[in-house]
Amino acid sequence: MPDSLDRSPLGLAQALIRCPSVTPEEGGALAWLGSVLEGAGFTVHRPRFSEVGTPDIDNLYARIGTGAPYLLFAGHTDVVPAGDTAAWRHGPFAGTVADGVLYGRGAVDMKGGIACMLAAALDYLEAAGPTFTGSLGFLITGDEEGPAVNGTVKLLEWARSRGERFDHCLLGEPTNPEHLGDMIKIGRRGSLTGKLTVHGRQGHVAYPHRAENPIPGLLRLAGALLAEPLDGGTRHFDASNLEFTTVDVGNPATNVIPAEARATFNIRFNEGWTAETLGAEIRDRLERAAGNAVRYSLDLQPSNSPAFLTEPDAFTDLVAAAIETETGRVPKLSTTGGTSDARFIKDACPVIEFGLVGETMHQTDECVAVADLNRLTAIYTRVIAAYFAAAGRASEG
Amino acid sequence: MPDSLDRSPLGLAQALIRCPSVTPEEGGALAWLGSVLEGAGFTVHRPRFSEVGTPDIDNLYARIGTGAPYLLFAGHTDVVPAGDTAAWRHGPFAGTVADGVLYGRGAVDMKGGIACMLAAALDYLEAAGPTFTGSLGFLITGDEEGPAVNGTVKLLEWARSRGERFDHCLLGEPTNPEHLGDMIKIGRRGSLTGKLTVHGRQGHVAYPHRAENPIPGLLRLAGALLAEPLDGGTRHFDASNLEFTTVDVGNPATNVIPAEARATFNIRFNEGWTAETLGAEIRDRLERAAGNAVRYSLDLQPSNSPAFLTEPDAFTDLVAAAIETETGRVPKLSTTGGTSDARFIKDACPVIEFGLVGETMHQTDECVAVADLNRLTAIYTRVIAAYFAAAGRASEG
Ligand SMILES: [Zn+2]
Ligand SMILES: [Zn+2]
Repeated sequence: MPDSLDRSPLGLAQALIRCPSVTPEEGGALAWLGSVLEGAGFTVHRPRFSEVGTPDIDNLYARIGTGAPYLLFAGHTDVVPAGDTAAWRHGPFAGTVADGVLYGRGAVDMKGGIACMLAAALDYLEAAGPTFTGSLGFLITGDEEGPAVNGTVKLLEWARSRGERFDHCLLGEPTNPEHLGDMIKIGRRGSLTGKLTVHGRQGHVAYPHRAENPIPGLLRLAGALLAEPLDGGTRHFDASNLEFTTVDVGNPATNVIPAEARATFNIRFNEGWTAETLGAEIRDRLERAAGNAVRYSLDLQPSNSPAFLTEPDAFTDLVAAAIETETGRVPKLSTTGGTSDARFIKDACPVIEFGLVGETMHQTDECVAVADLNRLTAIYTRVIAAYFAAAGRASEG
Repeated sequence: MPDSLDRSPLGLAQALIRCPSVTPEEGGALAWLGSVLEGAGFTVHRPRFSEVGTPDIDNLYARIGTGAPYLLFAGHTDVVPAGDTAAWRHGPFAGTVADGVLYGRGAVDMKGGIACMLAAALDYLEAAGPTFTGSLGFLITGDEEGPAVNGTVKLLEWARSRGERFDHCLLGEPTNPEHLGDMIKIGRRGSLTGKLTVHGRQGHVAYPHRAENPIPGLLRLAGALLAEPLDGGTRHFDASNLEFTTVDVGNPATNVIPAEARATFNIRFNEGWTAETLGAEIRDRLERAAGNAVRYSLDLQPSNSPAFLTEPDAFTDLVAAAIETETGRVPKLSTTGGTSDARFIKDACPVIEFGLVGETMHQTDECVAVADLNRLTAIYTRVIAAYFAAAGRASEG
């Protein structure tokens, strides 16, 4: 642990923001985090993973304690690019505080969240001293905002092969839409992308009978995919939703009927589907709409984003209670929003997500109220304490 | 007239093909044509027209005789590019004959047609000698395959301002789908192009309620334009037809809902519409389909292609009779196909079109049977003779 370490959530968040760790760069963020955790008594590993076609990625795994239960904090230190740096009110990697607000890339997604976990862990361990008999860990990747190939997936596999087993995981992504305490994520929708091509025959617009315009066929197929809702949602999930993200023909000649028309769609789907069952439904809808009239091909992209749900249980109640105590809000249990690394962690142990307010994430002037950093730290500290206290009671009982 | 002029239709066509007159280049074609016509006693003018944003263009107007009636031949010496020259069996500007077929860019569209008009005029005038008391003219542009801004439109305006008045015009575009004698064009459909843009709001696919996808709106509007036929056709015209020629969004990110979607359509419309009435119908259909649900804009391009019909009359009968005599075929009177400069000429005098077989026009290995050149020349000669003979009978009667 650096000698002069500022252990406040703000100080820790500033230190992380000042490491320019834009994916795939480590930027010093994991090295700094590792040294702080080592200083606090954690055993720290820094596995680096490679795969052809993607950049090598640094990761971090740290554990303190060998007993049960094992509570794992997870997250990522990589950040999306700052974009137009000149447009920022304060330098995106400066960690400036103004009017009680900390500015910087990663302030909420999710260097701020990691700073709070870290502050909470250091506080708790110092207070608990030798009475701590459980295990506390950090599983932090540098590849969440990138292809997510050399990150959490491989880090979990690496940990599993070393015999590491977790009881519960709390992922610190920014889950709150507006106010700290709004929302816990207890699952995520899956994501499936399809590329649809309708084949026609090129020709002159004045002789349409000698050509075959693929555009009406594409309208027909796209209409068929949008006509009926995929489902009505489930208890914990919104209805699955299909969005066309692009349609392209690229024909500059207004007197020419084109040979081909292409469209891409993305589906965010709930636990009622797997990528396979959903793919079958899409193929079925297209086949029925096309009949013998439309020649098309469908390319469903391989998906590493299944839908999943962590059924609310005592751990969820414990986290919700900590949030309510510190913020006065009863958090909504939600599965909305994009994907996160929780989709990989759920195969290792029950995982839920709670972090800062996401409003400014990925934007210019990403920022977090210093008061929120302090409150999230208090929530995480309360979660750790309650988790191991409950375990103590359980083992006594 | 060049001393050693080969006055056969083949020789004249070869001479023209050997001038590389790809729009907007004159390529020597009009200069050569002018010298031949001057040698035959025509008064030849070579007006050159300009307009900001388009290339300067050479044109030709030639007349022999001052009496009535006045029969005008019209056409163009410019050609579309040869494309991949190496893919041609014979050089596109070599004028090679193989197995009774003349190869070259413009062989049918429409240097071959001009060669036949020219051969017919020279033959007829030589035979008629001083008994010829009518007027015969050539109105030839170098801007038919290009923007058609500095060509026939301005040449007609130039002629009108000099007091030139025509009684009938025969335009020598390739009108026959398969066999010489198949088809006379007695009008052309109009052409109107529209660019449709649907406006939405960009956002992340995981949060569709915060974005507004323009693609479903575009599907709806495009569907509305295609849902009902524009009309059922008329006695001389096919039904008007709308084709979408492109749809473009250009969004490479499969997790982003785009801000805008664009489509272009082109309508080939019959005499039941003007560009204005058709534009109003399109606006009306869009407005009804959009309601308050779709924000869009429509850009109807200025159209210089109205629909027009030259009602079949004695001149049409005369041309049809000449065709039947020489080919044994009764030509269909048609208004199908693309636009031609006849759309401009119809404001100056009744115009019909008859030329070679269009099958290979604009393609690699464009070619014409030498036999067809000879037969078309015979048809044109018969037309000229019958036209002035009929005039003689009328003035005697
Ligand atoms: Zn994140
Ligand atoms: Zn032509």
